Amino acid sequence: MKTVEFWFDPASTYSFLAAARMDSVAANHPGVEIVWRPFLLGPIFKAQGLDNSPFRIFPAKGKNMWRDMERQAKRLAIPLRVPDDAAMEAFPRNSLLAARTAIVALAHPWGHDFVRAVYAAQFGDWLDIADPAVIGGILQSLGQDPEAILAQAQSDAVKAQLRDNTARAQALGVFGAPSFTVGYELFWGNDRLEQALEFASEAA
Amino acid sequence: MKTVEFWFDPASTYSFLAAARMDSVAANHPGVEIVWRPFLLGPIFKAQGLDNSPFRIFPAKGKNMWRDMERQAKRLAIPLRVPDDAAMEAFPRNSLLAARTAIVALAHPWGHDFVRAVYAAQFGDWLDIADPAVIGGILQSLGQDPEAILAQAQSDAVKAQLRDNTARAQALGVFGAPSFTVGYELFWGNDRLEQALEFASEAA
Repeated sequence: MKTVEFWFDPASTYSFLAAARMDSVAANHPGVEIVWRPFLLGPIFKAQGLDNSPFRIFPAKGKNMWRDMERQAKRLAIPLRVPDDAAMEAFPRNSLLAARTAIVALAHPWGHDFVRAVYAAQFGDWLDIADPAVIGGILQSLGQDPEAILAQAQSDAVKAQLRDNTARAQALGVFGAPSFTVGYELFWGNDRLEQALEFASEAA
Repeated sequence: MKTVEFWFDPASTYSFLAAARMDSVAANHPGVEIVWRPFLLGPIFKAQGLDNSPFRIFPAKGKNMWRDMERQAKRLAIPLRVPDDAAMEAFPRNSLLAARTAIVALAHPWGHDFVRAVYAAQFGDWLDIADPAVIGGILQSLGQDPEAILAQAQSDAVKAQLRDNTARAQALGVFGAPSFTVGYELFWGNDRLEQALEFASEAA
């Protein structure tokens, strides 16, 4: 069975679209296993000399991204609230806690639901995913024990796992999110999800 | 009749794909008129604080771009030679002469063929499109008089037209190429060609 690694940062807008579509697109490729890999874009941007998201550094790019997200979300029937100026200023959110909690969540059957709920809270309701109360509320809505899961998310093992994920993403050439890798073959962007799965299917 | 403006820089890799696909995709939208607008990315990158193509400034992004171009060209059955290191260093080419000549060419029925031939010479054969002999050779292969067309391309009127195109692209929020605009609605990237045409069709 061929594996596609799905690299996402919980603060990444286009990763939101990819996470929303992933399970239904993957259903077309039953011979391909998808492994969800939370990682942090921050250190990867920094290594490229970028001290913020390219969507903040380059305003024209950022403006088009939000308009494009609005169009893509509408096509996919995904609730998205287009940010006002204040919300725009808060982008991108600090995604450290969400990424660590995702690592814990993805070891459980409700992991994909957790990731999608994080994106929905962030880009649908403009909640701050750096706030433990927000992440705790999502865990509770999924029938989980917020305190136990959040404690696990802050364990040394999980912290190390997230650092390893980010380092491996970078070693694979990941420079943005979402990215999809099949071995050393890298596909960048929500628009390449289908091609990544086709590539894995054909290689299988 | 609704108009889509197709903004391309002759040195832009993904504009190559869009130019190659344009006429056949446009055929699916007979109610939409496509206007080809050559412009220069250089001044637009500079205005964003970038002194070169993002594909050169960010090596991981550039490396993935070439691999992705290779995959997309294969899917579209477009000849593309993946650059060796020396060719990579020569990217992006100075596209001033090619853009000016495209402005002249696009007033003629052979204009689209000219643009496609410029991309084929550049990314298929790795010729320097800044060389008048290369552009002249393309004109000759299209049955045109190289001297007469190149003289027209260097006229004040054409120089001013290219500056105007670039200024208008920037005013419309264009930050990369290819871009497609329908009025003030901006779509960025070869992957958005279909959605731009659909948008124009629905607005018609």
